[in-house]
Amino acid sequence: MTLPIRLTTLLAYLSIPCFAQTPTSHSERAAQAAPTGSSRLPQELRADSSLIRSLFTQALTHNAAYEDLRVLCKQVGPRLSGSANGQKAVEWGQRVLRAAGADSVWLQPCMVPHWERGKPEQARVVGASSLRGAVKVCALGGSVGTNGALRAGVVEVQSFDELAALPAEKVKGRFVFFNRPMDPTHVTTFTAYGGAVGQRGRGAIEAAKKGAVGALVRSMTLRADDFPHTGAMRYADDVAKVPAAAIATNDADKLSKALKDNPALQFELRMDCRTLPDAPSFNVIGEIRGSSQPREIIVVGGHLDSWDLAEGAHDDGAGCVQSVEVLRLLKASGQRPARTVRAVLFANEENGTRGSLEYGRVAETDAQRGRRHLAAIESDAGGFTPRGFSVEESPAALAAIQHWQPLLAPYGMGELIAGHSGTDVEPLGKVGAVRIGLNPDSQRYFDVHHAATDVFEAVSARELELGAAGMTALVWLMSQHGL
Amino acid sequence: MTLPIRLTTLLAYLSIPCFAQTPTSHSERAAQAAPTGSSRLPQELRADSSLIRSLFTQALTHNAAYEDLRVLCKQVGPRLSGSANGQKAVEWGQRVLRAAGADSVWLQPCMVPHWERGKPEQARVVGASSLRGAVKVCALGGSVGTNGALRAGVVEVQSFDELAALPAEKVKGRFVFFNRPMDPTHVTTFTAYGGAVGQRGRGAIEAAKKGAVGALVRSMTLRADDFPHTGAMRYADDVAKVPAAAIATNDADKLSKALKDNPALQFELRMDCRTLPDAPSFNVIGEIRGSSQPREIIVVGGHLDSWDLAEGAHDDGAGCVQSVEVLRLLKASGQRPARTVRAVLFANEENGTRGSLEYGRVAETDAQRGRRHLAAIESDAGGFTPRGFSVEESPAALAAIQHWQPLLAPYGMGELIAGHSGTDVEPLGKVGAVRIGLNPDSQRYFDVHHAATDVFEAVSARELELGAAGMTALVWLMSQHGL
Repeated sequence: MTLPIRLTTLLAYLSIPCFAQTPTSHSERAAQAAPTGSSRLPQELRADSSLIRSLFTQALTHNAAYEDLRVLCKQVGPRLSGSANGQKAVEWGQRVLRAAGADSVWLQPCMVPHWERGKPEQARVVGASSLRGAVKVCALGGSVGTNGALRAGVVEVQSFDELAALPAEKVKGRFVFFNRPMDPTHVTTFTAYGGAVGQRGRGAIEAAKKGAVGALVRSMTLRADDFPHTGAMRYADDVAKVPAAAIATNDADKLSKALKDNPALQFELRMDCRTLPDAPSFNVIGEIRGSSQPREIIVVGGHLDSWDLAEGAHDDGAGCVQSVEVLRLLKASGQRPARTVRAVLFANEENGTRGSLEYGRVAETDAQRGRRHLAAIESDAGGFTPRGFSVEESPAALAAIQHWQPLLAPYGMGELIAGHSGTDVEPLGKVGAVRIGLNPDSQRYFDVHHAATDVFEAVSARELELGAAGMTALVWLMSQHGL
Repeated sequence: MTLPIRLTTLLAYLSIPCFAQTPTSHSERAAQAAPTGSSRLPQELRADSSLIRSLFTQALTHNAAYEDLRVLCKQVGPRLSGSANGQKAVEWGQRVLRAAGADSVWLQPCMVPHWERGKPEQARVVGASSLRGAVKVCALGGSVGTNGALRAGVVEVQSFDELAALPAEKVKGRFVFFNRPMDPTHVTTFTAYGGAVGQRGRGAIEAAKKGAVGALVRSMTLRADDFPHTGAMRYADDVAKVPAAAIATNDADKLSKALKDNPALQFELRMDCRTLPDAPSFNVIGEIRGSSQPREIIVVGGHLDSWDLAEGAHDDGAGCVQSVEVLRLLKASGQRPARTVRAVLFANEENGTRGSLEYGRVAETDAQRGRRHLAAIESDAGGFTPRGFSVEESPAALAAIQHWQPLLAPYGMGELIAGHSGTDVEPLGKVGAVRIGLNPDSQRYFDVHHAATDVFEAVSARELELGAAGMTALVWLMSQHGL
């Protein structure tokens, strides 16, 4: 597009006299229509409207969350639970919360799983002319290693039902290759993820139950790419623990084809991963105390840990820096919220949710002492353009929030719906907190999710900041008006 | 984010018995809620709803527009009007329209400007310790060259008013450096563009009026980056033609700082660009004839030309392949639209709009012969996640389209507003066509606009296809129900 204006206006810009009669430019018209304290708003929302405009102006002008993310991604980097970088991330979190102007910053200790990938994985196929060279795989988080080369045949399935229907001798001694793609026809990519990720979570259990030696799982992405996408998997106490690896979608397609040509091909896998004893870690917490109702708490949060293959920029560096930005933007507004606003950088969301569980336990104790969690907003769906919020299991709270729709819609965040909030705020349901999820555009999330592509460069400063400002707006409204 | 499901459901996935009681998975619930012919829709819209679901399924499953875009970007590439690649793009357009199943494909000739960049631009600053080495610049489209090195002082301004207020001797013999940034506080980036792009369009005219030797214009982007962003500029017949260049935003900031340190610094610019005689080109048109009202026409279009610095993936390869996809999706639906649907790949939007003007002229002749243009949808705002449509200057048509909001909202395209349509469909206002613009998310558009970063890799297949399917849905509704 050359110019976002009518052709006549374009030509006026360019001083072509015969078209120069248009009196008002598009930019002038658009600026007049830009979100401010619109006079069409109900009287009682106008002061909030002005404050919210100032939050967005501050965020889009200073990009402070984006700069925090740069430091987290480039100076800390991958930060899996139990790793040395995990501890560096805790220190980073304390620093940025203090710099954002929190009244107090503290750590909440918890023990977290400690799994290590070890030496880079190696995989190849023997007996397939169409699939030569290294196959792109990675261990799923929590998997056992292979103790040298593990070589076996492969049987491909699309579902657990298909696996269950196979005769035992077809599975025994082989790898089970779970190759069901995410369904691209879902508009919300999380729905597609939900429909496929069971293969990753319990593929190794179901495979081992039938005597398989390992599980190969198609990567959880909608793209055809060359990056294996890791993620959590689990074992059952009464089932043998077999290695489980993710395979890049392009190589999954090649392997599927190769199996059709030669069902007797062999797959060779080497993984060096192992689980060590649980390690100490921390939720990192900062808060601004409420001016009039400090014992009522509104949480904003994301998770500080990430998988080890990339910088965890979208998952969930974005949610962390947005939560810190909420405190910073409130400070910059010059207004102290009526209720206490707390940013929580949760430990260990990816492979244990120990931080979330610990925060929930403490919140229960707090509740007995009269400190009440009113609401909790989680940002853990990527730093993409925000579309709105989803409110979990509370139609009354949703209705209250929808009353503020005219204040959020001018920023493209008017979609206020019932739905999932987030994993880390889940335990706060027990203490009566309204659980809310930030909903960004989901189209590109699984392009980078749990893969080497989840780096700082994949984040847009504006998209990230819009989410942070929108979270701050909703926090402000809840803090002043309750729910 | 690990899993888009409640923690209890996650743990059920992972076979932790104490949590395994959740009977219904998130994915199952979400699938039930996925857009289909919802029973809450008014009866008269249910058949359309099913058809629209099939359009989105087809688009998201086959990604045919994305594959078309790959070929256009990688096998044709940059395709400025008058260039050899411009002609290759015309041939590509004919091929893909035929392959998409158009009933007929034809060319509509027009003469287009022919400007060439020539050898790469060179620029440097003399007398500034903070800005050494090459300064990243590019000629603005249509600029004259410098005829060797052009070396002069620099005076910086933020606006034409500021320039007008300067004493003539401050400007005479110098470059005018227009350094007003796009305003980041606008949520819609096109508004920020509209507020700054005048510097680019007529900076050279205003500078030369006061005796300047050239114009340096801050690149039109909201990012701090190292890419000069080109774009159209123009001269006036009665004002001297001076060279005009865009300067990358990082270097613009450095130049501004260097000028504060040493207002007497010199800027040296070499540009080899020139304007050649007008060249022949073509609008490329394909259509599916309507089954019952073939003489009523609905246009979908984008522009085939691009700037010369990149592949023109978002601007406007996206609009072209989406328009072609509209025909392909209609064909795949197995239903012939009642009215004629025409995809138009317009020539020369970037620096002349000659294709648009020619199409408009022919449409006027057609109107006299009883062939009526009912509506025209333009896609020229990038291949990003679509949010909806804007309807220009027709409240009645907007109201009719808003009646279909329940059919588009499930696909994230429910924002149906009054607003700008597009430059290429502008002349169709004269023949009474309702002009409509596809509105994608605008946050990242100016990251790539008119710069070397506008490449195929910057486009998401899903975002592109959602736009194409949404355009097809609206075309279908208008073709069956009129406006």
